[in-house]
Amino acid sequence: MKIFVPKETAEGETRVAASPDTVKKLAGKGAEVVVESGAGAGSRITDAAFEEAGATIGTAADAGSADVVLKVRRPTAEEAASYGAGTVVIAIMDPYGQDEALTAMADAGITAFAMELMPRITRAQVMDVLSSQANLAGYRAVIDAAHEFDRAFPMMMTAAGTVPAARVFVMGVGVAGLQAIATARRLGAVVTATDVRPATKEQVESLGAKFIAVEDEEFKAAETAGGYAKEMSKEYQAKQAELVAAHIAKQDIVVTTALIPGRPAPRLVSKEMVASMRPGSLLVDLAVERGGNVEGARAGEIVEAGPARIIGYTNVSGRISASASLLYARNLSAFLETMTDKETSALKIDFDDELVKATLLTRDGKVVHPNFARADAPE
Amino acid sequence: MKIFVPKETAEGETRVAASPDTVKKLAGKGAEVVVESGAGAGSRITDAAFEEAGATIGTAADAGSADVVLKVRRPTAEEAASYGAGTVVIAIMDPYGQDEALTAMADAGITAFAMELMPRITRAQVMDVLSSQANLAGYRAVIDAAHEFDRAFPMMMTAAGTVPAARVFVMGVGVAGLQAIATARRLGAVVTATDVRPATKEQVESLGAKFIAVEDEEFKAAETAGGYAKEMSKEYQAKQAELVAAHIAKQDIVVTTALIPGRPAPRLVSKEMVASMRPGSLLVDLAVERGGNVEGARAGEIVEAGPARIIGYTNVSGRISASASLLYARNLSAFLETMTDKETSALKIDFDDELVKATLLTRDGKVVHPNFARADAPE
Repeated sequence: MKIFVPKETAEGETRVAASPDTVKKLAGKGAEVVVESGAGAGSRITDAAFEEAGATIGTAADAGSADVVLKVRRPTAEEAASYGAGTVVIAIMDPYGQDEALTAMADAGITAFAMELMPRITRAQVMDVLSSQANLAGYRAVIDAAHEFDRAFPMMMTAAGTVPAARVFVMGVGVAGLQAIATARRLGAVVTATDVRPATKEQVESLGAKFIAVEDEEFKAAETAGGYAKEMSKEYQAKQAELVAAHIAKQDIVVTTALIPGRPAPRLVSKEMVASMRPGSLLVDLAVERGGNVEGARAGEIVEAGPARIIGYTNVSGRISASASLLYARNLSAFLETMTDKETSALKIDFDDELVKATLLTRDGKVVHPNFARADAPE
Repeated sequence: MKIFVPKETAEGETRVAASPDTVKKLAGKGAEVVVESGAGAGSRITDAAFEEAGATIGTAADAGSADVVLKVRRPTAEEAASYGAGTVVIAIMDPYGQDEALTAMADAGITAFAMELMPRITRAQVMDVLSSQANLAGYRAVIDAAHEFDRAFPMMMTAAGTVPAARVFVMGVGVAGLQAIATARRLGAVVTATDVRPATKEQVESLGAKFIAVEDEEFKAAETAGGYAKEMSKEYQAKQAELVAAHIAKQDIVVTTALIPGRPAPRLVSKEMVASMRPGSLLVDLAVERGGNVEGARAGEIVEAGPARIIGYTNVSGRISASASLLYARNLSAFLETMTDKETSALKIDFDDELVKATLLTRDGKVVHPNFARADAPE
């Protein structure tokens, strides 16, 4: 099995789909690993480090003879065409609303797997790129906020008086939100958080933060009903929105992390809420690439919005590229391992495996994933 | 007493010498406080906030009729000339090697006080600008490092594997160094520190960091001898230098904070030590404005130096301007209070007070401070 790891071509992509650690593992199992020269530069991995781990250093042309291409981002049509038909390509494919790009991959004849569609089951945890990258994005969101903020995070009791602790509000308590809470707490901020799932209250409190919710009978019933999101009543939603709006006006920093797979990000913070904040406040919108949780956020920019600024960095996990690549590479190598014959070390894909079924996008010239294969697609 | 607070004119100076808090205090005691319009803009204090606290908003021309001017930086010759003779000016005067600037202040006839010469005695702690600003600089140095670093600081145990904690080494354990240690620890780094004073070992360890020193008999004797720096033997210094050099090669981040009042900063890290570090490492040189602790550091720049980068931001406490101004303003108002008649609220300077004697630079047309009044100065 020949595995090729290209240098990413998407602008601003600092990550790489292999690490010396995973190269060593894959090569140790008999694979031939070729890494494109400079592929690790954005993640502080030198060609020499890859070589030392057992890879050979090649060029983009090596993709044509590879059985497997490990990538961070979906290949462009040109890249896909440069791979041989039947080549397995594993990446974050960002497939929603990208019919044309999926068709291009199908036309190229590649066997494309979308890592972000990995089912969230125990066996696949080690392959969960959404978790591994969101965790780092949550950390980085708080570091970016601390860097832009013109005050200290921790309360400081000094001879000249006390500097108050920063107030940080995290909206959306998934993997990214939990790490944002933990990081802001580490730095000494007073942290609050909210989520549409009342069951997350316990997680928030276990990190030493306060959960912000209208805790009426309806909330309490939903809280004990367990982890699944339950649509709350219109009345409840109105009361909660009012509480959150009043809360935001008193915060120094708001971090939003709410994403809905395959849909635009929900709007959590209105222009009016931003305008209600104090001078020098910050909002960090981790959903900006999906349309944003904060009204006025713009992808790739820090927007001045009255008293506040809205930080809209894209590819936030890529802003700590060395850690992000390390974990992403492990996600990929773990998945590839499930598709490798233990005895011959050859590629051996079981198309009935639930991991394969969940992530396989294109095969034999067709878009095969049920979510993306349009009924009206030509035969 | 009329107090004037100008907008700072030095490039990159974000701080201001008053806060709503100190304006309220001074105005409450009967002073007339005039703040130049926009003076607080760099520290997130609006003109309206100053007015609400009891100040009136004025222009630079108001300096001419003020009894007291509160400033962050030493006034330029033009500024000093615009103040009336006999005007009290309190600021960070940066007096060493600035004979010409001191003479200009003397010629203008102002009564200039240098806050950084405040004696380090209990009564003056609340006026200690070196401590208040160094504390924030130490915090900010670590935030700047975390922002530039391409990995996470804390160890993260995830389903995809463990991200190791960052290794941070703090050189120089004064106020800035201690806060740098505390902040890096908060963020989950593995922190080590060193200082020429063996007695700081206990402080370092009380913050959960490890002290790096050759702990031989000589060290142990010096450690128990108390807080005063004692010159160690040449042999000891050589052994210690070797230990530190080997230690730096294994660090991700080095923060240097060593300053000697009135002298260039000591060289702690050589070009060879920088070259020995791993790819992606960082050095933050808080002494860069005094010549730098790190060979190759340049004021105001991030220098690429082989495998590492050297961060040489200037005015680091000003990079968290809101907190820095808050504490600086309190330092100043506490000092001014000691020079105010409690009954009449008029200015009443006791030139025999040890705080006044230690900080007074110019008076009645002369440079009067013993460290700066040259014996050969014309009568």
